[in-house]
Amino acid sequence: MSTGPGAGSWISAEDRGFTLGDGVFDTALALGGVVFARARHVGRLLQAADALGIAIEPERVERALDAALTPAPTILRTTLTRGTAARGLWPASAGPATLLVSATPWSPALLGQPARLVTAAGRRNEFSPTAQLKTLGYLDHILAARQAAAAGAEDALILNTGGRVACSTIANVFVLKAGRLLTPPLAEGCLPGVMRALVLEAAPALGLVAAEAPLAPDDLATAEAVFLTNSVRFLRPVTALDGAALAQDGETVGALMAQLARQVAAQCGVPLEQAPSSP
Amino acid sequence: MSTGPGAGSWISAEDRGFTLGDGVFDTALALGGVVFARARHVGRLLQAADALGIAIEPERVERALDAALTPAPTILRTTLTRGTAARGLWPASAGPATLLVSATPWSPALLGQPARLVTAAGRRNEFSPTAQLKTLGYLDHILAARQAAAAGAEDALILNTGGRVACSTIANVFVLKAGRLLTPPLAEGCLPGVMRALVLEAAPALGLVAAEAPLAPDDLATAEAVFLTNSVRFLRPVTALDGAALAQDGETVGALMAQLARQVAAQCGVPLEQAPSSP
Repeated sequence: MSTGPGAGSWISAEDRGFTLGDGVFDTALALGGVVFARARHVGRLLQAADALGIAIEPERVERALDAALTPAPTILRTTLTRGTAARGLWPASAGPATLLVSATPWSPALLGQPARLVTAAGRRNEFSPTAQLKTLGYLDHILAARQAAAAGAEDALILNTGGRVACSTIANVFVLKAGRLLTPPLAEGCLPGVMRALVLEAAPALGLVAAEAPLAPDDLATAEAVFLTNSVRFLRPVTALDGAALAQDGETVGALMAQLARQVAAQCGVPLEQAPSSP
Repeated sequence: MSTGPGAGSWISAEDRGFTLGDGVFDTALALGGVVFARARHVGRLLQAADALGIAIEPERVERALDAALTPAPTILRTTLTRGTAARGLWPASAGPATLLVSATPWSPALLGQPARLVTAAGRRNEFSPTAQLKTLGYLDHILAARQAAAAGAEDALILNTGGRVACSTIANVFVLKAGRLLTPPLAEGCLPGVMRALVLEAAPALGLVAAEAPLAPDDLATAEAVFLTNSVRFLRPVTALDGAALAQDGETVGALMAQLARQVAAQCGVPLEQAPSSP
């Protein structure tokens, strides 16, 4: 079993990540050889491992990240599974855990691209014990992404079983409404996105009231701005939902984005927007 | 990429089955070198592949099964994924599909073992586009199996978001009530189990009315018998739910089991109960 970056191009076909989706992952951005918001990313992965009963030493995750870092702008995907085990859903023993970090080039061209959304046909299960964990089980979101692509849109808005907003296929959702920045609480079935947390924390300094609140799809239509957050694209403006244009308060979203860019520069020592794209 | 049985002990760490749970699987029983209900198993896998847009030639599945067959009683697990692709949930192109058949020994000792159930804390999402597909995403069921093990039970009863019966972690659920054999319709969020279909079809010859009907958890408490069905354990009697004993009409369940054993003997040329266990 190869578990180190670089050596990690093959895994056992008996790995429970492959056979049963028994694992979690994280996606982070590294600039200038530094993982942005590293402690948050590692902390979330370890919390998820703990929730699933997957034993992993924090130092092993840190070492794997270190080994994957280069000066180039990089998307780091860390995958953690329960490893191999005898047949059966809940094995008496398993492991050691499988840990892989893969690196792909990041480009600032990923920033600021607007997205049109369609409402996904499927619903996200806020009653699932894994609804707030970034598990390997992305098939429902894959099908939502297929639906979006078929409709000529860039992403899909995923509602929970109550018909309220959960997330997009790869991002958290924010709306700006009457000077308030709102995003669904985790109990609505969304992931505790690192960028989501950073935006919530950055808002007050910009004079914005930021809050978690359940959102109906109509709240997007009546918002002053709608944007998506994830760790690779930061803030992505949403320009349309199901073919209807949405309002664009570019100034507020731009100010939030600038605030986050300053955090990147401070942590990574590299300006976000001017980070050289990989060859 | 190794895709044939025997050679299939390693897969690419970039395989979408591993990274995103982008695939499906099937579990079937082979006795005497013959897969029981083979056409149903293959048909269900191909239907799921079609629903997910995974291109696979039926002959490739048939050949992989053939190559995995031995005279010994065997559990055949067929795993099918979208293969590798560039980053992104819905790739412009992917594949070829990854196909693996793994074989593990089966023993008749797996038959007839009674199960005590606990009600799973999590709910199954009947509104998911994959609710009726046997996808790689088994993590919610793994957590339900962990809950069952912690409670000293053998399996968990999984309800859908409406609070009605969906399935167990690895089986469909049947109740016998006033001479009627009832199991939830697929729309309740359960898988189209091969053994489920065989039981529904076998019932009339035994004078039983078999029907799909939504079931409340209370329907188990008031049933004359409750049993689970899957392709490895056939009919498994349920003796308790959350610590409360359930009624046992052993005669009816035994008659259904005998009917299925006759089908096995006819198809596989080997008596089910006396199939020699693997060394």
